[in-house]
Amino acid sequence: MTETRSLDARAQRLVDRAGQLAAFTSRPGGCSRLAFSAELAEALGLFRGWLEAVGLRCRMDAAGNLSAVLPGSEPRLPRFLLGSHLDTVLDGGPWDGTLGLLVAADCVEQLARSATPPKCDVEVLAFSDEEGVRFGSGCFGSRALAGAVHPRELELVSADGVLLAQALAGFGGAPDALETVARDPKSLGAFLEVHIEQGPLLEQLDRSLGVVSAIAGNSRAELRFEGRSGHAGTVPMDGRSDALAAAAAWTVEVERRVSAESELVGTVGLLSAQPGQVNVIAGSARATLDVRGPNDARRRDVVDRLREEAEREAGRREVRLDWTETLDRSAIAMDPRLVEDARRTLTRSGREPPLMTSGAGHDSAVMASLCPTALLFVRCRDGLSHHPDEHVAVEDVRDALEAAAALLEGWLAH
Amino acid sequence: MTETRSLDARAQRLVDRAGQLAAFTSRPGGCSRLAFSAELAEALGLFRGWLEAVGLRCRMDAAGNLSAVLPGSEPRLPRFLLGSHLDTVLDGGPWDGTLGLLVAADCVEQLARSATPPKCDVEVLAFSDEEGVRFGSGCFGSRALAGAVHPRELELVSADGVLLAQALAGFGGAPDALETVARDPKSLGAFLEVHIEQGPLLEQLDRSLGVVSAIAGNSRAELRFEGRSGHAGTVPMDGRSDALAAAAAWTVEVERRVSAESELVGTVGLLSAQPGQVNVIAGSARATLDVRGPNDARRRDVVDRLREEAEREAGRREVRLDWTETLDRSAIAMDPRLVEDARRTLTRSGREPPLMTSGAGHDSAVMASLCPTALLFVRCRDGLSHHPDEHVAVEDVRDALEAAAALLEGWLAH
Repeated sequence: MTETRSLDARAQRLVDRAGQLAAFTSRPGGCSRLAFSAELAEALGLFRGWLEAVGLRCRMDAAGNLSAVLPGSEPRLPRFLLGSHLDTVLDGGPWDGTLGLLVAADCVEQLARSATPPKCDVEVLAFSDEEGVRFGSGCFGSRALAGAVHPRELELVSADGVLLAQALAGFGGAPDALETVARDPKSLGAFLEVHIEQGPLLEQLDRSLGVVSAIAGNSRAELRFEGRSGHAGTVPMDGRSDALAAAAAWTVEVERRVSAESELVGTVGLLSAQPGQVNVIAGSARATLDVRGPNDARRRDVVDRLREEAEREAGRREVRLDWTETLDRSAIAMDPRLVEDARRTLTRSGREPPLMTSGAGHDSAVMASLCPTALLFVRCRDGLSHHPDEHVAVEDVRDALEAAAALLEGWLAH
Repeated sequence: MTETRSLDARAQRLVDRAGQLAAFTSRPGGCSRLAFSAELAEALGLFRGWLEAVGLRCRMDAAGNLSAVLPGSEPRLPRFLLGSHLDTVLDGGPWDGTLGLLVAADCVEQLARSATPPKCDVEVLAFSDEEGVRFGSGCFGSRALAGAVHPRELELVSADGVLLAQALAGFGGAPDALETVARDPKSLGAFLEVHIEQGPLLEQLDRSLGVVSAIAGNSRAELRFEGRSGHAGTVPMDGRSDALAAAAAWTVEVERRVSAESELVGTVGLLSAQPGQVNVIAGSARATLDVRGPNDARRRDVVDRLREEAEREAGRREVRLDWTETLDRSAIAMDPRLVEDARRTLTRSGREPPLMTSGAGHDSAVMASLCPTALLFVRCRDGLSHHPDEHVAVEDVRDALEAAAALLEGWLAH
């Protein structure tokens, strides 16, 4: 095996591999590979085969992460890590997570094929349960590396009644030995993740790649509006306590206020009315709020104001409001030096990459607590993600391969 | 049986009877007596016993209406009818419908106990399936009297898989002989229904009784907003097609515009978002509209404007709107002479009654197509109806008994 492949051929092979992995799904019409599932194990088996074919040693750690190491000439040096995840949401697409792992595998393969080994160990990591769909808590594998999995998470139960510990053990992990997964930060030199953007900005900017400078902070809340149900025909407008009207007015306010902020996004994704009948004034309504942005103080301030608005819209209608904050996660900056390196590297190859905030969470957010971390975004068609039609052009895969290889090379050179 | 009872004692007996009937329910915590059900048959059996105990002949017609006639001295004269319904919604209360039947039974009992028979026949009618909860089409019994039941309604199927024809036959009706139920309008002199208000106006006006001048017209529509779902963290605000935001903005507009009209009520009782997750922009949303008022032209004009608003709020967000009109029922005026008689009668007894529009539909709306019809409203606590806590004060029952008796007496006297 000494063939050398052109970048174009490698990009095409990567697209083919993504297609092969996409075939592993619990149900047709998209990619459904939930954490610790049989179909995920099969996909991981295929991926592992590709790594072992170029001579890498693979093993699964106690948290269900698959690790493949290419030994360096100076194994005591801090390692360079590349990784992402193979698990998906229900009816997800072929690229979320998968792209980063296939780029990592390609990069390491190039190193493995070269005559001289890299200076430091280079490791590919396929993190377990990034999505968190099955057990309701994501980035399990990367958090295990950071020593940030609470033992009680092992007792989480999936919708189909399986204990996380049990699912992990069946997958090849070792729930009783989770603490062995934690890494010493001093042993880690850097972590690089390549991921689809999951948004439309690169497409709008006509760029294949972007450099993430921060992962947005995130606030979430659950709201319950309690009014008084009544007959839609008999209760005059000024005698109503319409919980749904209050929730709707607040929803409009969320859209208005967040849109006036340049760096924030805010979403009411759920709104429901009880009893929810055409001829009954809604006695209660539920809603959710999700607000994200790179500036924590600004985000929290806007959320405070949205809470005041909710109180106001409820009060105007004699509706009672219960507001439960369910998440307040700070923004996480990527490593400034790696960000700068990435920008310089990409600009040299003629494509000045935009600096971006990631609105979605990623394993990179966890890894940033362990070592200098860089996250590259790759354009995806229509900004579509978590959807069967997720698509990345082969030309953009090529750019991603080139950029990741250049960053890795740059790191190994200094 | 020649005892005479005071009005107070009769009112107290009526309250006791309502309590006895309330015990017939398919589930605890309220009154659940759906159309043609076993518990409704049992309640009707008890009610029938009270009528037969004072010598009335009872029979069930082919549509499941229970009819009890007190023969008059001149049976060829048009009849005076009194009635309402014993069926309820799920988890309804003890008074909706029941009050009118118990008042009717008391009125006829007083006549039956008097030394001389009334001039014309007086008939009590317990209509079948007024609520329409089980088969989705209400006022079945009264519509059968009006010859306004379409034969295909017999093929309606309940949520528990029962055919209306089958349920009706099991209840003692005769689905194959529905046409025998239709009455000749010339045989009917007048129809009187006493019903709880199901709204708060009488309470606000500090009156026990009101006279209904019209039953409101009613428009209904189902709306579907189709946008584009997306990741709540990655799609910028100006790149969204948020179906829920469009639906919420329209819901606020419904409240605003209808509140600005003096005689209308308008309700969005259902609003739901798909997929309905905290971190996903809603790709589609459903909503319902219910608008009622006594002026048909005004109601239709407002509905047209609300449709334009829905188009506008959808268009602003690149969301597609499907609007389906599901009902456009005209307002129905009660008989002006009976309305005037009722006002005069009640004013004489010292309680000037307000003229009201009924926002809810009633058997009276159907009966008005057959003969002069009057509908009296009785105050109910907190305007609450279709609810286990439905409550009517015994003093108000007393006033209702007195008023109904006076109206009947007045009719029989001329």
